[in-house]
Amino acid sequence: MSVTLEQAEKLSQAAKEKAAAIGVPMNIAIVDEGANLVSFHRMDNAWLGSVDIAIKKAKTARFFDMNSGEIGKLSQPGGPLYNIEHSNGGLISFPGGVLLKDGDKIIGAIGVSGGSVDQDHEVATAGAEAI
Amino acid sequence: MSVTLEQAEKLSQAAKEKAAAIGVPMNIAIVDEGANLVSFHRMDNAWLGSVDIAIKKAKTARFFDMNSGEIGKLSQPGGPLYNIEHSNGGLISFPGGVLLKDGDKIIGAIGVSGGSVDQDHEVATAGAEAI
Amino acid sequence: MSVTLEQAEKLSQAAKEKAAAIGVPMNIAIVDEGANLVSFHRMDNAWLGSVDIAIKKAKTARFFDMNSGEIGKLSQPGGPLYNIEHSNGGLISFPGGVLLKDGDKIIGAIGVSGGSVDQDHEVATAGAEAI
Amino acid sequence: MSVTLEQAEKLSQAAKEKAAAIGVPMNIAIVDEGANLVSFHRMDNAWLGSVDIAIKKAKTARFFDMNSGEIGKLSQPGGPLYNIEHSNGGLISFPGGVLLKDGDKIIGAIGVSGGSVDQDHEVATAGAEAI
Repeated sequence: MSVTLEQAEKLSQAAKEKAAAIGVPMNIAIVDEGANLVSFHRMDNAWLGSVDIAIKKAKTARFFDMNSGEIGKLSQPGGPLYNIEHSNGGLISFPGGVLLKDGDKIIGAIGVSGGSVDQDHEVATAGAEAI
Repeated sequence: MSVTLEQAEKLSQAAKEKAAAIGVPMNIAIVDEGANLVSFHRMDNAWLGSVDIAIKKAKTARFFDMNSGEIGKLSQPGGPLYNIEHSNGGLISFPGGVLLKDGDKIIGAIGVSGGSVDQDHEVATAGAEAI
Repeated sequence: MSVTLEQAEKLSQAAKEKAAAIGVPMNIAIVDEGANLVSFHRMDNAWLGSVDIAIKKAKTARFFDMNSGEIGKLSQPGGPLYNIEHSNGGLISFPGGVLLKDGDKIIGAIGVSGGSVDQDHEVATAGAEAI
Repeated sequence: MSVTLEQAEKLSQAAKEKAAAIGVPMNIAIVDEGANLVSFHRMDNAWLGSVDIAIKKAKTARFFDMNSGEIGKLSQPGGPLYNIEHSNGGLISFPGGVLLKDGDKIIGAIGVSGGSVDQDHEVATAGAEAI
């Protein structure tokens, strides 16, 4: 079982509404349980560099089945996963990538980029909770 | 002037309806006038390998301001643009990438992949005409 | 509205004059509002490795609509954007990438590399202010 | 001995004048004897996809010390250099890349992209002859 396009559209809509509410245009990517892209939306005037980052956050979360920011805690200098960002064509290991779950089952992930990492995580969470 | 997310959503919806009408799940990508991704949708059960192809078709069309299939006519063995596909991180030069125009102004491009190239082009055209 | 080649040439000339004044040969890149390259100049004897860095600095500035050095303040170990440099095919997050503005409108960015980061920033700023 | 920035600017100006004369906006790249970029100019409204192609044409010419189109004659299916375009991060093997010579000495190359290959070659030749 994996996130459907219909679900992805619903989650993206919830994320866009949260982004609009906090006044920050965002890039929003959703991947399925195979870590393959399902949907992407760049809100008008959102950062161009965040297209790639939003997609990489979603993939990073699903690659390791944890929110992207958890990886960043482990990838610091001296940490156990130091510079893991070099793998998989480039990871993004700061917050904004959040797992999508149906009960206990992981069905994909959402990645958001365009504001501060706190804002990105807030918008991604709003999307993830709309399942 | 460039395609907005609202326009991209409308065009993608038209493309999805055409894809549903012909019974082929499609990947649908839209880029802006700077060839940067604006939106992407993968319909349920569409080919995974077509995620990248749909995006590359849209970029290819905007890179050279012509539909992607026009490039492929010129890039064959013995043709004037043989192996142009090695540029820009990889082009896709068969049909399915169509320019988006507002009057005479090019505002972006749509790329579709998931069926035969004729089906891809048909769905992309249905999207492009919905502006 | 985006930086024109005529504007880019004028800005590059101002940057070259500043580079000559401080006695450091520089690489100078200018990208448009879509983060696509408009012009590049490598002064005689400027570092070869700075060709790519100058281009990446300009792109980095436009990707996130801030000077490149601002990203580097946030991407340090323990910082909120740690290792963001892995995105977008490689960012350069130290100073030398400066936004180009026409009033409030961002129309592109200039990236300079060849000296110390302070020198790079000084030359990039001289270019950006010549609009 | 290698092409200087001053020479590159003179050659690029000649190429731009030829491009204007034939009414086709072009991307013009010049590399030195080390195949490293010296200068680049994208004329307003020139194809975005030709940024990379112009640079690759110039590098291809200098990589093998022959005009880029000569490579394409050898890289066809069944030819001795079939698919050589896969090397060096991507070659462009159709016309538009022309060697720069000072007498018998190769000092760099110019690459032009934005029109038909005949137009590209014509503009590149106009640049190369301005030495």
